Amino acid sequence: MKIVHNPDEMQNLCLTYRKAGDTIGLVPTMGALHDGHISLLTAIRQQCTISVMSIFVNPTQFGPNEDFAKYPRPFEADCARAKENGCDIIFAPKPEAMYPQHYATYVNIETITGKLCGMSRPGHFKGITTVLLKFFNIVVPHAAIFGQKDAQQVIVLKRMVVDLNCSVNILVAPIVRETDGLAMSSRNRYLTSAERAASVALHKGLAAAEKLYAAGERTAEPLIASVAAQLSKSDMLTPDYIELVDTVSLESQTRLTATALLAVAVRTRETRTRLIDNTVLGGCL
Amino acid sequence: MKIVHNPDEMQNLCLTYRKAGDTIGLVPTMGALHDGHISLLTAIRQQCTISVMSIFVNPTQFGPNEDFAKYPRPFEADCARAKENGCDIIFAPKPEAMYPQHYATYVNIETITGKLCGMSRPGHFKGITTVLLKFFNIVVPHAAIFGQKDAQQVIVLKRMVVDLNCSVNILVAPIVRETDGLAMSSRNRYLTSAERAASVALHKGLAAAEKLYAAGERTAEPLIASVAAQLSKSDMLTPDYIELVDTVSLESQTRLTATALLAVAVRTRETRTRLIDNTVLGGCL
Repeated sequence: MKIVHNPDEMQNLCLTYRKAGDTIGLVPTMGALHDGHISLLTAIRQQCTISVMSIFVNPTQFGPNEDFAKYPRPFEADCARAKENGCDIIFAPKPEAMYPQHYATYVNIETITGKLCGMSRPGHFKGITTVLLKFFNIVVPHAAIFGQKDAQQVIVLKRMVVDLNCSVNILVAPIVRETDGLAMSSRNRYLTSAERAASVALHKGLAAAEKLYAAGERTAEPLIASVAAQLSKSDMLTPDYIELVDTVSLESQTRLTATALLAVAVRTRETRTRLIDNTVLGGCL
Repeated sequence: MKIVHNPDEMQNLCLTYRKAGDTIGLVPTMGALHDGHISLLTAIRQQCTISVMSIFVNPTQFGPNEDFAKYPRPFEADCARAKENGCDIIFAPKPEAMYPQHYATYVNIETITGKLCGMSRPGHFKGITTVLLKFFNIVVPHAAIFGQKDAQQVIVLKRMVVDLNCSVNILVAPIVRETDGLAMSSRNRYLTSAERAASVALHKGLAAAEKLYAAGERTAEPLIASVAAQLSKSDMLTPDYIELVDTVSLESQTRLTATALLAVAVRTRETRTRLIDNTVLGGCL
């Protein structure tokens, strides 16, 4: 497994692979790898001859009061884990190589980035679209894979890829969960044991909504209410949003007529950790 | 010469050329071709095995009160001229293919686009960076060439290419002028004969400044004043700006210590046509 830090070196390497007829698959991560990330690596390896995992805690997608500084960076362990799982190349640029002096260019989606997580994280998706467009230019992947857990990120990136004519295939992998149902996240390690115990409510609520949907429920209100009911069982979780939205426009739906995303975000009481989870009803992203 | 309208078809074609080992050169234009455009085509043909000229009057780079509707579109004549001059492919997408329903993504440079032409044309450079990034993704060129006449556009695009890690080489070709010195522009056809006669003042003023510079002048004020003096000889031209700026930051310079751009923009009295011209002192873009 190669480890590359320099963006120009990475770009030259990937262009050479392309010329040689390889297909390149990209797994963008911020490191602190868990089984969810590994599932992405495994899936991309089945589609491409060269697997690239980027490990980059991207400063531009963090707000001023967010957890950029404390975000975990266990780089050696991440590399070992990626290597064990068949990764061909780790791309781990330094922030100053990605955003050098005079840096001033941003990619922004002017509609759907203000909704859901965008409401409480202004600028977050602008940071994501910008860094991903850079990665797409550096790694020139045929495919890039993302977890459904970050559903809005997937929807935003699919919009960007269509709008900017990026020749990369966006793949989406299912959410990987802990045995009690909590969606895996690098941020779960922030949780106190009380918060960790309470946080299973997100999945429980979504599972209850899925059951209602399977029984024929197509009105938003009871689907949302079943998530809210689970969250309210503990005082550890403050809902940020519970919404049923269209999977392209992210517009709120009052009745389900097509595929819709039921998404939830909460903040925990003790560590102010933000947790998200979702389910897609009637289709996939 | 092929003529391609569909962006996906164009992208597939260009990716195929790339795979076959061709080098692709792009000449982005809005059509209404003049000798300046042809000089770009001739130059790119010396560098690349496949020459692509895009012809697209890009709506997103025009302000609401600008000349988008009346901008000349002599498509047949342009194609004939391009073919005569050895162009391999014309890429002429429809606006609705470039900006389909739900389109929402823009590339923006948050610093240097507010200066010079950006002051009187808000959003202009955002439209340019967005459409050029799309073209770079569709045509996947090894090189793209632009005329020095649009100096700020060149500086903005070089910034974008560095910032977003685009693997395209930005080439700059010298300004091509009419016999009396007026820089060629598709907008020159808007001019009345009185405006046309007066408009030579832009080049005369810049040439006078170049002469001063050659004689050792390094202070901004007299260099700018020599342009202003020429413009003031006629009441047909209202200066929009005359500025001496750094070629990277576009910051105003009071004394010349490195390469600098002396740029001028005017509006004509009768047809309200905007004319620009420039010279680079002490180097090149």
